Amino acid sequence: MKLYTYFRSSAAYRVRIALNLKGIEHELEAVNLLKSEQQQQPYTDKNSQGLLPAMETEQGTLAQSLAILEWLEETHPETPLLPSDPWQKAQVRNFSYAIACDIHPIDNLRVLKYLANDLGVSDEQKTTWYQHWIIEGFKKLEPTLGDGPFCFGDKPTLADLCLIPQVFNAIRFKVDMTQFPKIAAIYEHCNTLDAFVKAAPENQPDAA
Amino acid sequence: MKLYTYFRSSAAYRVRIALNLKGIEHELEAVNLLKSEQQQQPYTDKNSQGLLPAMETEQGTLAQSLAILEWLEETHPETPLLPSDPWQKAQVRNFSYAIACDIHPIDNLRVLKYLANDLGVSDEQKTTWYQHWIIEGFKKLEPTLGDGPFCFGDKPTLADLCLIPQVFNAIRFKVDMTQFPKIAAIYEHCNTLDAFVKAAPENQPDAA
Repeated sequence: MKLYTYFRSSAAYRVRIALNLKGIEHELEAVNLLKSEQQQQPYTDKNSQGLLPAMETEQGTLAQSLAILEWLEETHPETPLLPSDPWQKAQVRNFSYAIACDIHPIDNLRVLKYLANDLGVSDEQKTTWYQHWIIEGFKKLEPTLGDGPFCFGDKPTLADLCLIPQVFNAIRFKVDMTQFPKIAAIYEHCNTLDAFVKAAPENQPDAA
Repeated sequence: MKLYTYFRSSAAYRVRIALNLKGIEHELEAVNLLKSEQQQQPYTDKNSQGLLPAMETEQGTLAQSLAILEWLEETHPETPLLPSDPWQKAQVRNFSYAIACDIHPIDNLRVLKYLANDLGVSDEQKTTWYQHWIIEGFKKLEPTLGDGPFCFGDKPTLADLCLIPQVFNAIRFKVDMTQFPKIAAIYEHCNTLDAFVKAAPENQPDAA
């Protein structure tokens, strides 16, 4: 299995954590988002959606981090990332999608580029935009969390895989995390675990 | 089961189609997005995420359309919306998330409000923004489609549930659909089916 990745891509970061947690042997191939390599051949021959990540498998290439994660869960059920009970599973997905659908896409690099290039938005306004969608989202998620150490009890789930990369971005863009103590504690806890540490942007071979 | 809905909410529209296709008895309760009712009590007591849709069930309330759809699929497997083969299922999710994560969230009403109120973006620029993300997304999806009549062969899947509401929005915002003949044909075909017609915005009790 080969994962097309970029060290700072949060969606790729989610999949890197899953591969580590499940102990799946894999190769990483870097695609540089800042050089727009994801929109160019040879990458677009693999993933016509032109975004990161993509996973090359024996059956073909799969895009969309959530589709990859659900597929990994089905084909490599060891170290499950979703509870088996349908209602509990729905709760985990509910939390995960609140990040993957309602925070992350609006702060995507291509959106920030559009704001700057097409709408003439200043760097300061862009940072405020970035922070705004994270704060809006985290405000709603923080009160739903329990006592940890993970989002849903004592085992990592899809929710943590979505949350940790989003917190990484929040810190990078100077969101004050003291207003989200539960989320901050989960982030700290996850970052004591090998699977999360190895997946972190700063530990990637392509880290700038 | 009760679905909290707004006639023009695409995420609610997805769930309405699923309920109809699966023949699940349900109630609809309208929450007016234009009046920001989704951010106010009593709705926020049901769904603390403060977005639409939400599904009230015997076990509690579930937010996030994709979490609701996956839960419906597991608990009401009749008229399946996902193929049983993991790779085929991943392809359907791959297509669905390209809409639900990469197009829809960026064109959400709250994002458009931020553009206007916080960044002083004009109505014309807002329309261009709206069209831009749909066109970008559809351009990548159109070449991946087969001969129909649905996104994946001769049965509706999660992909059609995500696509049809997005096309509805595209038409509303005057995207030229002749550049996407396959997508347009799937839209036309779906709109000959009762489950899709009944779920359409103009046929909702709260349609303005």
